[in-house]
Amino acid sequence: MKLLEERILKDGERIGTEILKVGSFLNQQLDVKLLREMGAEWRRLFAGEAVTKILTIEASGIAIAVAAAEAFGDCPVVFAKKARTSNVSGAFYTAKVYSFTHRTEHEILVPKEYLLPEDRVLLIDDFLAKGEALRGLVSLIRQSKATLVGCGIAVEKVFQGGGDLLREEGIRIESLARIRRMDGETIEFNN
Amino acid sequence: MKLLEERILKDGERIGTEILKVGSFLNQQLDVKLLREMGAEWRRLFAGEAVTKILTIEASGIAIAVAAAEAFGDCPVVFAKKARTSNVSGAFYTAKVYSFTHRTEHEILVPKEYLLPEDRVLLIDDFLAKGEALRGLVSLIRQSKATLVGCGIAVEKVFQGGGDLLREEGIRIESLARIRRMDGETIEFNN
Repeated sequence: MKLLEERILKDGERIGTEILKVGSFLNQQLDVKLLREMGAEWRRLFAGEAVTKILTIEASGIAIAVAAAEAFGDCPVVFAKKARTSNVSGAFYTAKVYSFTHRTEHEILVPKEYLLPEDRVLLIDDFLAKGEALRGLVSLIRQSKATLVGCGIAVEKVFQGGGDLLREEGIRIESLARIRRMDGETIEFNN
Repeated sequence: MKLLEERILKDGERIGTEILKVGSFLNQQLDVKLLREMGAEWRRLFAGEAVTKILTIEASGIAIAVAAAEAFGDCPVVFAKKARTSNVSGAFYTAKVYSFTHRTEHEILVPKEYLLPEDRVLLIDDFLAKGEALRGLVSLIRQSKATLVGCGIAVEKVFQGGGDLLREEGIRIESLARIRRMDGETIEFNN
């Protein structure tokens, strides 16, 4: 998506060769018009799919998912919470997620009542790097017996490999900006 | 706002006499159409105010703020993060917030570049009880020298007193559902 790539080049901040900060428009400060346009693009890419629910993860996925929901007929948005403790039980689907950024493992969870077997779920998240968070969300959907329609990602760091591993497992991933490399003079995108 | 009051009566869950769970439409699962209608109501209430920015706090405020932004001409949304540690320094505005729910104090923070002296800021949050979180957000705005237009709250628990204390300090608060009491047979709202 040209609009997002251009915005990344204009306002993204590279830190080293692997970290991209998008805090001024996609994270802590949000350009909601851009977010809605991203939602419209996912709608175009997933045309024909009857999405009944959007699933994301707190906190950075929530804004994108809510803005995108409009394009999917105002379907409900559900976000997985990151558990503070690992002793959650009861009526939750849970999965463990390893964070390479924070070098810790934590649990993510969704109440069972918010993911139903008849749901057709689109996953939305801001970043896809090694794919750990996305893999956890996919696990929650599989536990619920809902149908995973696919994943809409804002920024995929292709060079970190997580996206291609998930695609090899048959999961459809549509990333709006696919970064091939960012260790040179500029950020290079895949077409 | 009749629509929100009716939804609380239909889908809200009372836990004891003080806690109201709205997870199925305002928190972990989000009715984005309802959220946009709440935004339109705040726009009506704050008509004539040139809001340039919406400030909220992660995670539960983000969805409401993003959905409301459309009614305010797609103004940027900024959310305060809850710091894990208390040794944040550098280019942040910070405030301490005591949580009666979790009985802990934590720091909230916003990068200075996202709150400017020329901004006219509307605060948005889901709940107002004793007002601790809102007071922290007000502090961030005052540090930045931005203008606080007022606060748009989804659910105010009037019996916990925080809203009236803030109003006495001259802060404008517009709550869409004002719960007078919830210790009887049903939930009673103020007009």
